[in-house]
Amino acid sequence: MMLSEQRLLPSDPAVRGIAESLYAGIAALPIVSPHGHCNPRWFADDVQFTDPTELLVKPDHYLLRLFYSQGIELARLGRGVNANEDNRAIWQLFAEHYPSFEGTPSKIWLDHAMQKVLLIEEPLTAENADRIYNDICRRLRENDYSARKLFERFGIEVLATTEGAFDGLQYHDRIAQSDWKGRVITTYRPDQVTDPDTPDFSEKLARFGAMTGEDTANWKGYLNAHRKRREEFRRRGATATDHSHPNANTADLGKPACQHLLDRILVGTATTEDKEAFRAQVLTEMAGMSREDGMVMQLHCGVRRNHNSALFSEFGPDIGGDMPRRAEFVNALAPLLNRHGNDPNLRLVLFTLDESNYSRELAPLAGHWPCLRIGPPWWFHDSPEGMRRYFASVIETAGFANLAGFNDDTRAFFSIPARHDMWRRELASFLARLVTEGRLSEAAAHGIAADLAYHAAKRVYGLTTP
Amino acid sequence: MMLSEQRLLPSDPAVRGIAESLYAGIAALPIVSPHGHCNPRWFADDVQFTDPTELLVKPDHYLLRLFYSQGIELARLGRGVNANEDNRAIWQLFAEHYPSFEGTPSKIWLDHAMQKVLLIEEPLTAENADRIYNDICRRLRENDYSARKLFERFGIEVLATTEGAFDGLQYHDRIAQSDWKGRVITTYRPDQVTDPDTPDFSEKLARFGAMTGEDTANWKGYLNAHRKRREEFRRRGATATDHSHPNANTADLGKPACQHLLDRILVGTATTEDKEAFRAQVLTEMAGMSREDGMVMQLHCGVRRNHNSALFSEFGPDIGGDMPRRAEFVNALAPLLNRHGNDPNLRLVLFTLDESNYSRELAPLAGHWPCLRIGPPWWFHDSPEGMRRYFASVIETAGFANLAGFNDDTRAFFSIPARHDMWRRELASFLARLVTEGRLSEAAAHGIAADLAYHAAKRVYGLTTP
Amino acid sequence: MMLSEQRLLPSDPAVRGIAESLYAGIAALPIVSPHGHCNPRWFADDVQFTDPTELLVKPDHYLLRLFYSQGIELARLGRGVNANEDNRAIWQLFAEHYPSFEGTPSKIWLDHAMQKVLLIEEPLTAENADRIYNDICRRLRENDYSARKLFERFGIEVLATTEGAFDGLQYHDRIAQSDWKGRVITTYRPDQVTDPDTPDFSEKLARFGAMTGEDTANWKGYLNAHRKRREEFRRRGATATDHSHPNANTADLGKPACQHLLDRILVGTATTEDKEAFRAQVLTEMAGMSREDGMVMQLHCGVRRNHNSALFSEFGPDIGGDMPRRAEFVNALAPLLNRHGNDPNLRLVLFTLDESNYSRELAPLAGHWPCLRIGPPWWFHDSPEGMRRYFASVIETAGFANLAGFNDDTRAFFSIPARHDMWRRELASFLARLVTEGRLSEAAAHGIAADLAYHAAKRVYGLTTP
Repeated sequence: MMLSEQRLLPSDPAVRGIAESLYAGIAALPIVSPHGHCNPRWFADDVQFTDPTELLVKPDHYLLRLFYSQGIELARLGRGVNANEDNRAIWQLFAEHYPSFEGTPSKIWLDHAMQKVLLIEEPLTAENADRIYNDICRRLRENDYSARKLFERFGIEVLATTEGAFDGLQYHDRIAQSDWKGRVITTYRPDQVTDPDTPDFSEKLARFGAMTGEDTANWKGYLNAHRKRREEFRRRGATATDHSHPNANTADLGKPACQHLLDRILVGTATTEDKEAFRAQVLTEMAGMSREDGMVMQLHCGVRRNHNSALFSEFGPDIGGDMPRRAEFVNALAPLLNRHGNDPNLRLVLFTLDESNYSRELAPLAGHWPCLRIGPPWWFHDSPEGMRRYFASVIETAGFANLAGFNDDTRAFFSIPARHDMWRRELASFLARLVTEGRLSEAAAHGIAADLAYHAAKRVYGLTTP
Repeated sequence: MMLSEQRLLPSDPAVRGIAESLYAGIAALPIVSPHGHCNPRWFADDVQFTDPTELLVKPDHYLLRLFYSQGIELARLGRGVNANEDNRAIWQLFAEHYPSFEGTPSKIWLDHAMQKVLLIEEPLTAENADRIYNDICRRLRENDYSARKLFERFGIEVLATTEGAFDGLQYHDRIAQSDWKGRVITTYRPDQVTDPDTPDFSEKLARFGAMTGEDTANWKGYLNAHRKRREEFRRRGATATDHSHPNANTADLGKPACQHLLDRILVGTATTEDKEAFRAQVLTEMAGMSREDGMVMQLHCGVRRNHNSALFSEFGPDIGGDMPRRAEFVNALAPLLNRHGNDPNLRLVLFTLDESNYSRELAPLAGHWPCLRIGPPWWFHDSPEGMRRYFASVIETAGFANLAGFNDDTRAFFSIPARHDMWRRELASFLARLVTEGRLSEAAAHGIAADLAYHAAKRVYGLTTP
Repeated sequence: MMLSEQRLLPSDPAVRGIAESLYAGIAALPIVSPHGHCNPRWFADDVQFTDPTELLVKPDHYLLRLFYSQGIELARLGRGVNANEDNRAIWQLFAEHYPSFEGTPSKIWLDHAMQKVLLIEEPLTAENADRIYNDICRRLRENDYSARKLFERFGIEVLATTEGAFDGLQYHDRIAQSDWKGRVITTYRPDQVTDPDTPDFSEKLARFGAMTGEDTANWKGYLNAHRKRREEFRRRGATATDHSHPNANTADLGKPACQHLLDRILVGTATTEDKEAFRAQVLTEMAGMSREDGMVMQLHCGVRRNHNSALFSEFGPDIGGDMPRRAEFVNALAPLLNRHGNDPNLRLVLFTLDESNYSRELAPLAGHWPCLRIGPPWWFHDSPEGMRRYFASVIETAGFANLAGFNDDTRAFFSIPARHDMWRRELASFLARLVTEGRLSEAAAHGIAADLAYHAAKRVYGLTTP
């Protein structure tokens, strides 16, 4: 459908009026994207996207998962060894099943990308799919659709990408060396060298040592290797690290115990508990390093990756087989927090896929520990209803000042404006409800709206001074 | 109170207007009831119900539990060995305590049954209880209040009952042999021969073997016994099986391990873990058989049955002492799903009593695995607020296409129209909110409303061609 | 901001109209406060409060926690050994950070206390903080701001305080001996002599024995000591006990096993499991004693106390480091309920900090067991959104009749009117929504509103006849 200007705003006229006014005040603020997965090469090379299917369908795991749930094989969507290579046919298939996305945020993001970014003036249907395919192809060839031009047109003030411990960061170097002024920074995501369940972990640690000139078989050397890589990332603008763990467990072990764990992992005698303890200890070490070097620490936990073994074998990760699991933070984070959490200069941003954590754990924790901030609704919950539950569940205990603002957390570059717009509309709507119910003054609401749409992300992620 | 025509629809005029229009389009659609617990004898014998208390009060465990919570002994409600046998006095007691049901769905269902089915024109009170008792008695004696006539008047297109593994299915045979055209089908619910914690389980397995001509002490024979019974059920129209388990655990063991479990169970040396593993393995076998024979598999899990031991001893099951427990699906279903879940022809419908599963597990699972569909809010959550939480929690991740439509899941025949009506009103209200917020076109909403009120249940349960 | 007369009521005009009418009918009802933590000395001595900071800031752990989360050291707020002793400066700091409380119930309570109790006619800001400090000081010196005068002006019919097992109850005696008619009663909270993890537990049990003339090293003597103390508390008007446990676990052990646990605890050989079993058994014993003596039993469980070790070491308990944890009731309460729960004269009121319990456990349990009532939203959930989730989650299964009405559960005397007012507004709003949606008659809503605002607390806590 064609997007309405009032979309997502509440129906009640009194609330909507205030929501419109609040939204009007923040709609055009620059985009601060402190966490996401865009490819830095796009901006290094100022790439010109060419194909609607390659751009909007094939890389989007939100789409792939829902298609697959409807019995559509991934090969038909252009994935895997026997992949359909006819992008126009895939686009037609996509259009035919587009109604399956009704009610999901993906539909709103895609409609937004097509209507607001690609300037398509009719809703996608099976009938007009071919024409729209042509229209998009034509549009993408226009000069102002290069990655850098879009970055500017989207009003992005800063965009963080996410790179692994081994990344050479050459795209960020090339961006820095170019005459382009866009601020694209990296984020240190060292899971490959912190999770002993990673395939070939010992080899990876050896490579990590070689890369940094440290003896990573030695606990101190291992930590120093992280320090050196963090510094390399910071030189490319990074202000944050990111950690994806199966749970939020942390530990606070003595150095001999740490060395012992590392030894058992390297010789292959580590138990499941040892590996868990290693991951847990590393989180605490990362918090300690964040106190040293000022990098914001992000923790995304509670996912069971690759739930569908057959699909993982055939297609690899990120094709929709990741599932949330129940998460626990209060007991899990106690070791880390008791070691580092009273430092008001540390910033640890927490994300969850288990909404029962919001009011029970995240808000009470963030409403006490000075280091904590609550990240925005993540992944499956980055949606209108997800944001409503989030605001209603966390604000009363944590206040607004303990939120981290918004993250789009996406690799879908064309959806970035849509995602920030959705947050801004939901934020305005929640605040408008508080105003209408006499729980907040309209003046205060305007200030909070601007903060959570823009300033908070800059402040929490240390992005104010480039 | 007298039911209003706008009941359950949202108050906001803009949303209500659209909700009314959506509801108007689906209110009169036939009822498809793919899962429930009506007694097939009613339709075989075309019984005429006679007594309001026997019909509406004594068999309803929703009523008994809430009465009991208010200190009213079950004997006073006509249950147990010292039961009050004066149905008129029980009706009076019921009327006096009827206000205790304010705010519960039972109140809406009962008001609906009295006003819309039994055509009582005033709300039940302690004062008019006796008169209404007489009115209902008189009404029930009318010709068009026989079970078959009501079935037709309710607009039921198909009604599934639920029978155990040993059931002779004679009522279904008699319905089939009669000249009545009503479609009443059975459902295979084999818990008595799949749960080793069932009393006299070994004897039951022996009987199961005798009934099917299979050696149920042999794993292969045991599975074949199921196959034969499933075929018998299918001959009586069954398109589905149903499994009530304490949790969603599944397993994927080799044949020798399965035989071993069966051996230990039969000789009485099985541990708690063995019994759990047996139940878990059986679920995976049932999914495999569903792939063979096309029967839809339903899993209702997460109940602690008969929480009140004294009441269970005195009155047996189903008097209100069943309690939900926390449930987990992602890890629990992994063995079954990895064995059978990529088959797009399998249908596994999941139900939960733990609403925290909706957004965390059921929607992400159903939004990926082709075999999965999410059942409607079950039991304690089959209610206005329960449906609102359900829609708000599952749609954004699973879409509308991964829902199974509505089940009334009831043994209270007279409440069936009320229950489907509640679902249709809540569905219309939810969709109307999406329309008003610019998240769905009104045309799409009409299509989705009809689908989830009627077509989805037929499609998911394979009921399209009788 | 200045409080609006319509605050917290829904925006929709139709719902708001009914909510206003319902609220008008209950706004002025007397306050029944059956559970809280006010200091009985205030009423024994008819104290005159003197300082805004001592009164409103320093004792409020809701404020301290949120300040601390924003990096403000507790010493600056007047806590600990190096405490800022300049209350005027603390008040200024409080005013500067007052916007951090936007969106929290604390803000509404404080605004209410300042505007409605202390009659301050402008919102607190950094600019007017000093003037308002003076205004409050002046106001507090007025005659009608003594504790007893405020008690009367607040319309408090009865206020329960909470005392430990060793408390001499002298303040309650002095209140009784005075000519003041205010009803201030105590509550028996014996955690110090029921939780073996309490420091110096053996010594405490010895002291408990000495105090009561019982041999508390003997299980029967230990129980009798409780009986005697309960009687002492009842003589000071107590109608209830209160139990704060880490979880809801209960047990039903034989006497020898109980003696055995007690022995191991006293000689210091008790394991963690022994201590858990002891706490669990004590809860069941307390329920048994409640059947004997008629005292209502309250269970507040699911808190991890003093999560921040450093803060606990420096400042002791109750400075904001308590965190909710996941809770479970169905399995945990089964032993107690199966022993005592069918007695309709027993009253056990349950509270949780884990909202996922509401629909999954508390409502189904309270909707069956005659002894159970559900306490109001507790602590972090005593808030507008918390109450909305509570009503929406429990009523449909438990009905209104299984609720315990409202508890303010506070030590912040000046916030008591605000807290009851918030409950009454939210109650009116929820009921108005049911009325507008045709789910409840307006007449019934008025009755339920009055019951849950006033009568239910009296009835459930046995407060009707002093």
